[in-house]
Amino acid sequence: MKAKVHITLKNGVLDPQGKAIQTALSHLGFDGVDEVRQGKFIEIKLSDTDPAQAKRRVSAMCEKLLANMIIENYSVEVEGETALAAQ
Amino acid sequence: MKAKVHITLKNGVLDPQGKAIQTALSHLGFDGVDEVRQGKFIEIKLSDTDPAQAKRRVSAMCEKLLANMIIENYSVEVEGETALAAQ
Repeated sequence: MKAKVHITLKNGVLDPQGKAIQTALSHLGFDGVDEVRQGKFIEIKLSDTDPAQAKRRVSAMCEKLLANMIIENYSVEVEGETALAAQ
Repeated sequence: MKAKVHITLKNGVLDPQGKAIQTALSHLGFDGVDEVRQGKFIEIKLSDTDPAQAKRRVSAMCEKLLANMIIENYSVEVEGETALAAQ
């Protein structure tokens, strides 16, 4: 079973990496780029067979290790599940 | 208009960061994690109004700056567009 995790900076948190990309794009001649925000995308292969349980486990992984809950949001998407957990 | 870009390592390319996450998860007591791959997730706000053109522009950004085409794949998803460009 595969889980996809998106980790993004919360609104209002400065993103110097995103700013650097925006500046570089402008120097390369790409106009009209209003904002760039960079986050992480993590794919996890699990031996779980129950999507609901897999999602709970991956959410726990996010809160304990993958995301810094002070400045980041996470969302978890598990194969065979349509709902999303976001915080 | 908003574009979402996923940049992932190609199959077969070693991912030490993903391995480190996998090891850390195991130390935290999360069993049954078979593989972890870490990629980037970039959100770009554009002043474009045509989804098809926005997608072409963002694909060009990926090839020129955002992705290392030797070892990485990218996919672009533009608001109001359902198709995906992946390479």
